[in-house]
Amino acid sequence: MKILISNDDGYMSKGIRTLAKAMAELGEITVVAPDRNRSGASNSLTLENPLRLEQQEDGVYRVEGTPTDCVHLAITGLLEDEPDMVVSGINAGANLGDDVLYSGTVAAAMEGRFLGLPAIAISLTSHNGTHYETAAWVAKKLVAQLKLSALPADTILNVNVPDLPIDEITGIESTRLGHRHKAEPVIKEVDPRGRMMYWIGPAGEEEDAGPGTDFDAIRRGAVSVTPLQIDLTRYDAIDGVANWLKDI
Amino acid sequence: MKILISNDDGYMSKGIRTLAKAMAELGEITVVAPDRNRSGASNSLTLENPLRLEQQEDGVYRVEGTPTDCVHLAITGLLEDEPDMVVSGINAGANLGDDVLYSGTVAAAMEGRFLGLPAIAISLTSHNGTHYETAAWVAKKLVAQLKLSALPADTILNVNVPDLPIDEITGIESTRLGHRHKAEPVIKEVDPRGRMMYWIGPAGEEEDAGPGTDFDAIRRGAVSVTPLQIDLTRYDAIDGVANWLKDI
Amino acid sequence: MKILISNDDGYMSKGIRTLAKAMAELGEITVVAPDRNRSGASNSLTLENPLRLEQQEDGVYRVEGTPTDCVHLAITGLLEDEPDMVVSGINAGANLGDDVLYSGTVAAAMEGRFLGLPAIAISLTSHNGTHYETAAWVAKKLVAQLKLSALPADTILNVNVPDLPIDEITGIESTRLGHRHKAEPVIKEVDPRGRMMYWIGPAGEEEDAGPGTDFDAIRRGAVSVTPLQIDLTRYDAIDGVANWLKDI
Amino acid sequence: MKILISNDDGYMSKGIRTLAKAMAELGEITVVAPDRNRSGASNSLTLENPLRLEQQEDGVYRVEGTPTDCVHLAITGLLEDEPDMVVSGINAGANLGDDVLYSGTVAAAMEGRFLGLPAIAISLTSHNGTHYETAAWVAKKLVAQLKLSALPADTILNVNVPDLPIDEITGIESTRLGHRHKAEPVIKEVDPRGRMMYWIGPAGEEEDAGPGTDFDAIRRGAVSVTPLQIDLTRYDAIDGVANWLKDI
Repeated sequence: MKILISNDDGYMSKGIRTLAKAMAELGEITVVAPDRNRSGASNSLTLENPLRLEQQEDGVYRVEGTPTDCVHLAITGLLEDEPDMVVSGINAGANLGDDVLYSGTVAAAMEGRFLGLPAIAISLTSHNGTHYETAAWVAKKLVAQLKLSALPADTILNVNVPDLPIDEITGIESTRLGHRHKAEPVIKEVDPRGRMMYWIGPAGEEEDAGPGTDFDAIRRGAVSVTPLQIDLTRYDAIDGVANWLKDI
Repeated sequence: MKILISNDDGYMSKGIRTLAKAMAELGEITVVAPDRNRSGASNSLTLENPLRLEQQEDGVYRVEGTPTDCVHLAITGLLEDEPDMVVSGINAGANLGDDVLYSGTVAAAMEGRFLGLPAIAISLTSHNGTHYETAAWVAKKLVAQLKLSALPADTILNVNVPDLPIDEITGIESTRLGHRHKAEPVIKEVDPRGRMMYWIGPAGEEEDAGPGTDFDAIRRGAVSVTPLQIDLTRYDAIDGVANWLKDI
Repeated sequence: MKILISNDDGYMSKGIRTLAKAMAELGEITVVAPDRNRSGASNSLTLENPLRLEQQEDGVYRVEGTPTDCVHLAITGLLEDEPDMVVSGINAGANLGDDVLYSGTVAAAMEGRFLGLPAIAISLTSHNGTHYETAAWVAKKLVAQLKLSALPADTILNVNVPDLPIDEITGIESTRLGHRHKAEPVIKEVDPRGRMMYWIGPAGEEEDAGPGTDFDAIRRGAVSVTPLQIDLTRYDAIDGVANWLKDI
Repeated sequence: MKILISNDDGYMSKGIRTLAKAMAELGEITVVAPDRNRSGASNSLTLENPLRLEQQEDGVYRVEGTPTDCVHLAITGLLEDEPDMVVSGINAGANLGDDVLYSGTVAAAMEGRFLGLPAIAISLTSHNGTHYETAAWVAKKLVAQLKLSALPADTILNVNVPDLPIDEITGIESTRLGHRHKAEPVIKEVDPRGRMMYWIGPAGEEEDAGPGTDFDAIRRGAVSVTPLQIDLTRYDAIDGVANWLKDI
């Protein structure tokens, strides 16, 4: 099994190093990851400028680009053989609820859809986490299961792992995305040169975090596994919109 | 009616100027847009650095940031009153099928969900289009209709307009996103200093472009209106994944 | 006379607009300037990525690049005829003493040396200046005089103009660069996400600002005109270094 | 002796690793260098955004910033004790003649003037050099000599080392900067999306490369050591400019 590994924290982050080591027990790995932190990059693609690739060591490449650039470049040009799977992470920090739209870690997995293959994004729910080994253990279990029993080719799994020792993990649950309240206001500050500046504020608190959501699973010490779709069409609204358009 | 206008081509693009003029006939507008071309930015948010905002003219602000930054900043800090609607565009070039994941124009509309309001992303299906007035005319019709008859608060409309005179437009249709074939390979070139570089290749050809898709509508000279959802959960896979996880 | 105009505050800044209008009274002008603020860019050149040029209006081009990129691109590729002179500015803020090493405004003038022509960098000594007309008046006088009486081809003039009405200007003086005290310490702050960040501190106070320096001229309400050299060799140290090397 | 080490090729480049190892034999070293390649950065300073610093390993810090940012940050905030010297390099590629104005390697040494200390910029004259050990050997000899016998506090040495084995080096010579012909024209190309782009062309050929220049020393297999000054005033033109200004 050939596994392509990427992330949005950069090729030298602890999360991707831990993940790569775990995945190497299951197959042949290649790491193609950003040369630095690209958190918040979402699915952005670099179209105006060329990408640069450097081989860091055997099987490890760093790209001056976004997570999506990395996976795109790996699959459509760099790798001689198509990988069988894309695994992205282990992200330093949760990607729960509305976070997934902004996440470069999730975007790297999404980009794996060009392969028609399953892809997994995996995050540790703490920015300064200590239990990367727990997330690596979860990744190994999920990848081994995927090898035995495929999911639909266009299914992305968004996995969040509590920052706990393995024996304190209470389960691995199939979940839906919860939702957050509206984000906190931007923070207005004056910079040291006297100019006004604005910082994007923190994400909002959990709003829809009840049973069945990823927020709820994490709160109870369980791993959340949320199936994501790439096709953003809201199918159940197509007829309603058709009616609505009649009156124009 | 207060309308917030943004885009990903930058505040000085022809598309946003044409849109702003049309929207001013329907309500009070504010333009908050990137200071330069940010195509391909997707939903990326600037978290590591502060944002800078400059008032370009009355009601027009330029931000050194992404489309998502612009809408986020406008709604959570800049505007005294919440707008009633977000309209993003008119993009120079189509946002059809899989394009929407990468699009900054669509992302700006998505960010409008923080308001719980309808949002529209509108694109002209030609990079060097000449019929921006047609797209502006469509935008006016849709916004006027939204004022009369609301759509679900979390519904985003992704609108593509053929680059044709108004009287050659064959209809306004409710559609689903089509799909493209896998992207073309990255293009490997040597730069003038002798270093290898890689360009992201063109998007793939249309694969799923049959009746009901946005591709199909555009091909027949009709405007496509695709309802999008922000919640990426694949609800119909949650039970399957639950079963799948049992065997781990 | 053909005059190339650039700056580091961006093509839409008040300073370059005022300068362009004044220079148009003396010759045929072309503006090639950064698409946004590039203060502090020094002589940096964009070597890894291509440059993009957009015509903003007749004779006005904006470049996604540094001031040095702009002048380099204009002279070695864009302009059909070589200009007779490069004028850079009017900068919003002083470029006195040690500032010149970091200044993009001065760098744009330096890049004019590829033409073997005189070049002038002109700055208004206030960040929120109101007397750009005074600086434009000085620029016109200097350029007219350069037309009559050439300076050595490799001489750059670094001009600073007090932010005063023309009739309060006390003179136009030939000066040397003064020197500043060591810069203030970097400012350590915690960003809204709890991460440490560092801001470059303010420039140091004036240390060598006595008679003959640019600092002194400005303090007395006079325009300072400092001839700069591009060749950084310390000629009077070559023999000393030769001796010093003997002992290695 | 405390030595601060930086460069413009990034903290993981072979040049800085080789230099750090050699300098560690002479004193206590700290490496503060860009997190990626910043060639061509000149003396640019990051004023609009904060800097981020990460400790890579003991005594090695990487900064998301320019070479000048790195040295500035180290000296004015990071290091508890002021270093005794700044050594920048070993650059992958020559910094001869007019190159020095654009060089981030030289700029890092220049920024050392805030310390009032000697600073050395050292480059290997081949982009894909193999003899970094030769440059490291030169650096050790120069630093040891500086410890014994100081140069004027504001003297920067710009050192270029031929890419040769140590026993083929023909000498270490005190030189002046040579000069290049005007740069080659920008290279106009069309990118894969059909948009025009411009690449900065190669540096010009050597024009003033006779006896006494750095070009000449390198050609003969010798190390060139050029003393540089930071004060750009052209002192011998001050009186001429004063006369010239009388006629305005």
